[in-house]
Amino acid sequence: MALLALDWGTSSLRGALLAADGTVIEERSFARGILTVEKGGFPALFDSLFGDWMQPGTLCLIAGMAGSQQGWLEAPYCPCPAGFAEIAAGLAWVDQNRIAIVPGLSIEKQGTPDVMRGEETQLFGALQRLGLHDACMVLPGTHSKWVTVTDRRVTDFSTWMTGEFYALLREHSILARTMPAFSSTNNAAQTPALEPAAFEQGVAHALRGDGLLHTAFSTRTLSLFKRLPEEALPSYLSGLVIGEELKCQTLPSGQTVVIIGSETLTVRYALALRQIGVPVQCVDGSAAWYGLRAIADTLNHQ
Amino acid sequence: MALLALDWGTSSLRGALLAADGTVIEERSFARGILTVEKGGFPALFDSLFGDWMQPGTLCLIAGMAGSQQGWLEAPYCPCPAGFAEIAAGLAWVDQNRIAIVPGLSIEKQGTPDVMRGEETQLFGALQRLGLHDACMVLPGTHSKWVTVTDRRVTDFSTWMTGEFYALLREHSILARTMPAFSSTNNAAQTPALEPAAFEQGVAHALRGDGLLHTAFSTRTLSLFKRLPEEALPSYLSGLVIGEELKCQTLPSGQTVVIIGSETLTVRYALALRQIGVPVQCVDGSAAWYGLRAIADTLNHQ
Repeated sequence: MALLALDWGTSSLRGALLAADGTVIEERSFARGILTVEKGGFPALFDSLFGDWMQPGTLCLIAGMAGSQQGWLEAPYCPCPAGFAEIAAGLAWVDQNRIAIVPGLSIEKQGTPDVMRGEETQLFGALQRLGLHDACMVLPGTHSKWVTVTDRRVTDFSTWMTGEFYALLREHSILARTMPAFSSTNNAAQTPALEPAAFEQGVAHALRGDGLLHTAFSTRTLSLFKRLPEEALPSYLSGLVIGEELKCQTLPSGQTVVIIGSETLTVRYALALRQIGVPVQCVDGSAAWYGLRAIADTLNHQ
Repeated sequence: MALLALDWGTSSLRGALLAADGTVIEERSFARGILTVEKGGFPALFDSLFGDWMQPGTLCLIAGMAGSQQGWLEAPYCPCPAGFAEIAAGLAWVDQNRIAIVPGLSIEKQGTPDVMRGEETQLFGALQRLGLHDACMVLPGTHSKWVTVTDRRVTDFSTWMTGEFYALLREHSILARTMPAFSSTNNAAQTPALEPAAFEQGVAHALRGDGLLHTAFSTRTLSLFKRLPEEALPSYLSGLVIGEELKCQTLPSGQTVVIIGSETLTVRYALALRQIGVPVQCVDGSAAWYGLRAIADTLNHQ
């Protein structure tokens, strides 16, 4: 049975047509995140972009913000611990046995909820692809997720606003004044060429420092005292925020950390984790397709 | 001898005419921070705003960013440890024995410099006013300073970007989306009425949490799960960032913390410090006048 796999996020929409064995037959992507879709406009947009892939018997599974309150159909969060069975049971059916939205995950700790939506599909895909039952995973991004998997179920996770803090400091803070110009319309400028030495200096300073509220200011003073050139400051700041994120984790000694995401970010997390002696394994964004294929297979076996 | 005391910052300019005993004879303030003054325009602006106060024999001392590279005359940072004598020796004279700029302070730790400019005058004023020789002080602000004073000299200090992080998260982050509208032209909106219960909840969550990169996200989830009303979110976020700042300090057991600044901020720091059982003493912004008077007296006694 063919599977139409969609990753429908806030600002982008990716789709893949997968064969029964998981092979990607074709891929499409559009700048049609849920924020660009008017209320009630999801079915028509779906038909226009992917209707030709929906042959009789084709199943479509959709991961990401399409399942949020502002999306196509709300798929309530699945409370952890959760694995393939809980996700399959929590599917929100837009069209019974034809189109379904994958639920996000939630967890409650110390009276405070945490959530993910979209990342669950990627991490289940990585589990499937690597054949893992237990894992410590990180999904870097605007809001990074650290995830503990035990016996193929998510038993713990937490959200880290690292990417967003970086962008705020890079674009809007006093630190931006001494950095090369930032252009929000230019992705290359947003993530300038990495300078590994400056990045590692940032990671090291965060690890030995007293906290990001303080260490962030070193980006300014190192510039003021001409200890770092302008071009190196974005890499240094990136090292500071990622180093801070790592410093706050309790990493099981000797365990490999699985890093899931686009190369721009996985490269940085791999550098920082290796800097503190943690072995890593990287999985790219195709993990979402493996995840949706595995969820579809779970359905077929029920 | 009368003293013309100026606090000339980035965005504002305050002046006071002080009698020999420190009494404030008159005060003036203008929206003429150094960013509004063109290169070479400082002497003429000074004459137009304060010329009538400069009688024969009057000394003028200026604290703040007027001593930076972009100011009237650069007053190089005075390295710590530094007290009244070092500050007096480091004055940058615009007009010998008539108009001088107070130097900021610098310190170097772990290969990283830290600086202050303007706060040194306030903290020396607070020392003078309270008759203290040793103190642990905090000057809350966009960039808060934590200061250790030993025998009337600054022996250690550090900068915390707490106020700026708050503003970035409050105005530009995803957290802003579920908060009451933020207006950068309206100071009252920037610091909305404090809701003490939500503020204390934020402080408590930061203190027991794993770091601001993670705890900040709780502002979103508490809103998403309707555990906190919109109006309480800014106070909660303020508690989170100030709580994080406190969590990172090593506070000497039982020692009073002196809080120096405007009431809006000192109230919050006092609440948070009392919440963790630390005794506090507050000093308002007039500390700058005491500081400049004390520096002038140091000059007279040399």
